[in-house]
Amino acid sequence: MVKVLLNGASGKMGGVLSGLAAAKGVQIVAGVDAKKSTREYPVYPSLWDVKEDFDVLLDFSRADSLYPILDFIKAKDKGAVLCTTGYTKEQVERINEASKVTPIFRSGNMSLGINILTRILKDYTKILYENYDIEIVEKHHNEKIDAPSGTALMLSDAIQQTLDAETNLVFGREGMKKREKTDIGMHSIRGGSIVGDHEVIFAGTGEVIELTHKAISRDVFAAGALEATKYMTGKGPGLYNMDSMLFG
Amino acid sequence: MVKVLLNGASGKMGGVLSGLAAAKGVQIVAGVDAKKSTREYPVYPSLWDVKEDFDVLLDFSRADSLYPILDFIKAKDKGAVLCTTGYTKEQVERINEASKVTPIFRSGNMSLGINILTRILKDYTKILYENYDIEIVEKHHNEKIDAPSGTALMLSDAIQQTLDAETNLVFGREGMKKREKTDIGMHSIRGGSIVGDHEVIFAGTGEVIELTHKAISRDVFAAGALEATKYMTGKGPGLYNMDSMLFG
Amino acid sequence: MVKVLLNGASGKMGGVLSGLAAAKGVQIVAGVDAKKSTREYPVYPSLWDVKEDFDVLLDFSRADSLYPILDFIKAKDKGAVLCTTGYTKEQVERINEASKVTPIFRSGNMSLGINILTRILKDYTKILYENYDIEIVEKHHNEKIDAPSGTALMLSDAIQQTLDAETNLVFGREGMKKREKTDIGMHSIRGGSIVGDHEVIFAGTGEVIELTHKAISRDVFAAGALEATKYMTGKGPGLYNMDSMLFG
Amino acid sequence: MVKVLLNGASGKMGGVLSGLAAAKGVQIVAGVDAKKSTREYPVYPSLWDVKEDFDVLLDFSRADSLYPILDFIKAKDKGAVLCTTGYTKEQVERINEASKVTPIFRSGNMSLGINILTRILKDYTKILYENYDIEIVEKHHNEKIDAPSGTALMLSDAIQQTLDAETNLVFGREGMKKREKTDIGMHSIRGGSIVGDHEVIFAGTGEVIELTHKAISRDVFAAGALEATKYMTGKGPGLYNMDSMLFG
Repeated sequence: MVKVLLNGASGKMGGVLSGLAAAKGVQIVAGVDAKKSTREYPVYPSLWDVKEDFDVLLDFSRADSLYPILDFIKAKDKGAVLCTTGYTKEQVERINEASKVTPIFRSGNMSLGINILTRILKDYTKILYENYDIEIVEKHHNEKIDAPSGTALMLSDAIQQTLDAETNLVFGREGMKKREKTDIGMHSIRGGSIVGDHEVIFAGTGEVIELTHKAISRDVFAAGALEATKYMTGKGPGLYNMDSMLFG
Repeated sequence: MVKVLLNGASGKMGGVLSGLAAAKGVQIVAGVDAKKSTREYPVYPSLWDVKEDFDVLLDFSRADSLYPILDFIKAKDKGAVLCTTGYTKEQVERINEASKVTPIFRSGNMSLGINILTRILKDYTKILYENYDIEIVEKHHNEKIDAPSGTALMLSDAIQQTLDAETNLVFGREGMKKREKTDIGMHSIRGGSIVGDHEVIFAGTGEVIELTHKAISRDVFAAGALEATKYMTGKGPGLYNMDSMLFG
Repeated sequence: MVKVLLNGASGKMGGVLSGLAAAKGVQIVAGVDAKKSTREYPVYPSLWDVKEDFDVLLDFSRADSLYPILDFIKAKDKGAVLCTTGYTKEQVERINEASKVTPIFRSGNMSLGINILTRILKDYTKILYENYDIEIVEKHHNEKIDAPSGTALMLSDAIQQTLDAETNLVFGREGMKKREKTDIGMHSIRGGSIVGDHEVIFAGTGEVIELTHKAISRDVFAAGALEATKYMTGKGPGLYNMDSMLFG
Repeated sequence: MVKVLLNGASGKMGGVLSGLAAAKGVQIVAGVDAKKSTREYPVYPSLWDVKEDFDVLLDFSRADSLYPILDFIKAKDKGAVLCTTGYTKEQVERINEASKVTPIFRSGNMSLGINILTRILKDYTKILYENYDIEIVEKHHNEKIDAPSGTALMLSDAIQQTLDAETNLVFGREGMKKREKTDIGMHSIRGGSIVGDHEVIFAGTGEVIELTHKAISRDVFAAGALEATKYMTGKGPGLYNMDSMLFG
């Protein structure tokens, strides 16, 4: 069983990861967090306090704690799975450099499903576009401020980059105007406590194909992160991500 | 079995009605249409040519053929089911007048399902609104010019008239702006040959209720019209509609 | 703001209720639980230890703690919201008796949405059945042992009791056999960590109506329970439930 | 514009093809059918009566008219698109033989969407199966006798052949029994006039992926057939199908 050191053990994701690890065949041997918390494993205030042996460091902390992490894993000669978002360009360069001497996994979206859906879109949009109109519907809770969601834009980017043709995102419709073939409708539903649904509609002649992803809970990100720690066990130096893990 | 005289027998709806009548327990004894067509019953060029006895006249023609129809059914002392749309205010008044001496059924949307969904919204929106956010999604083919659809507006009207509170239709979202409680999102998807889907979403805390109607084909309007001819058999003078038929 | 005494404060639902109360306009002033827990309010080992004044007792404990609860609220002259399931016939009788001197709210399913959906089915199934075939689809996680779900049976009961006609639940289909009009298809999907979806399909001629409920999280039961505490504030003796709360 | 000779011009599919051809960039120059019909092009009683020049023969007739078709296209040195199903083993061999001297396109399901969905399943099921449970839901009208549908079995075959692991189709659930990882739930909904929906559900930890195909009308088969006639224009001898057309 892979032995994981969890950085950011006391936050909400720390709790979710701790609850899910065993079922996913992962053992969290120790945690690190400035804030105290009661876990089934010891939680230390800093990385260098950790006494337990581990295989992979799993990071769910904050972008500004990156450099101490890189120093630590290089010194310990261990791999890392970085699930934190919001890195600056300089920070990303430092990650790339560090990956030359130690294995690093990094992804902006830890959901297996969203990454697989994105890949399906990259593989099939070109074939579909000739005969199908493309529309995207995404649903989130009523506290979400941005529309469309970052994930919806990730999906529409995958679609648009795959097509040679020029296409245009259309954010809702009102009035008298026929759909252009180059439209990609982008519809943002907001309400209640919906976690996050994304649906890509390919509407053709006499038929419709729908590719849908529904997030149920934060578990989805924890499950992806735990899979990544297993994937990184025994890996040599290099930069890894969801695509390399899922599609080799 | 109710005996029906079908006005507008040679059009597309004439064909659909002819194909569906027997299965719905209705006998079309004769048709009327300026355009010739081959049906299993005689098709005459004008109403006064019809020799067959009938119980109810079913009209799927055009608004400007209204007055001859009213004269005819009053003279014959028969009921009529009017499925034509686009009547002027004056024409509507003439229908109301005629209904004092002969039974007339009139509806702007012959789909049983849309009429039932509208009624559910009238009955339940007030109870739901306190704890749920309301959004509407409608999907139609890529040739449809208007957005939102007339049916979607019929549904949002039913919702807004039921609520005492002020609400605002929001036609799509883009940018940084939190949902207002008074928003009713209205999202118009266009693509391929989708016949017509309407979904009313009530998104609450930890749960979502969706009330959905999907039209499959023109059969839906034929089925509603044939039900109406059965309902009108033996009725006395008066004005009837989907609500009186469905909910008595 | 209604002041609530929460019995069963240390369990999972206790945590969910504590997190949601303020947003729903409810103040939990104290909790009771044999097991200790750290909440934002004091948690006592037994009801009689509670020092705080409260309006309504909210119970999320176990069926066998019923009698002490009834004694306590009668002595304190306060109302109770009982969200525990699995009461014996004798226990139910004791609840009914107690409700003659103190206000008691009791429901087997605290989801507002499921209760509203059930009511819609009771109101509309009779009208729909003549023209529509009825099928039920429910989806739950892969650890659920029973099929169909209790909620799916609650929905099919509501449907069957409303109809005069005899109908039969059909649990899946395989082989050569045409659907009987009296069939009510009951389909139990199991997979992953799906929280609980229920869909009632009315399939007619050329159209389909779908009434769907999707549970997102335990929040749905907490939200219903907190609404109930507000509803019970100031009520006189009697037995109350979701139907009386929602539909007066 | 490709010039098509339509064999089986007077049937229902003949009418659908005639209505859709122009919009798809195909010209039907003549039809053949034992039964007379009024089309915008001449309809002859037999293949050898046709006077018009054509590029591709499109067949929507019956299996027992195969041999005259093969003789005819070999003599005329033209390609054929065979959309008829139910060929015997011997007939299939004769098709294969004929394809050595003349180009022949043959498919058991002319829907572009179903063929694309099948291909996605072949490409992605292996990656998905480790982390997701698989269930299939299909919906058809209430006159359909067989369950599950042929298309649903085509999809489950694609899934099962892709996996090394043994899996078992489960046709509905009732009683107390936990889902096995090796289950593939197969749920057949029947009702009203639903044309044909197929949904493959991948349910994972905290997320669900759904791949859905909805047939709207016979247009879907006409659209696929017309695409095939364009694809076959200018092709040399050989056997072609949906896979070669869609994925090269």
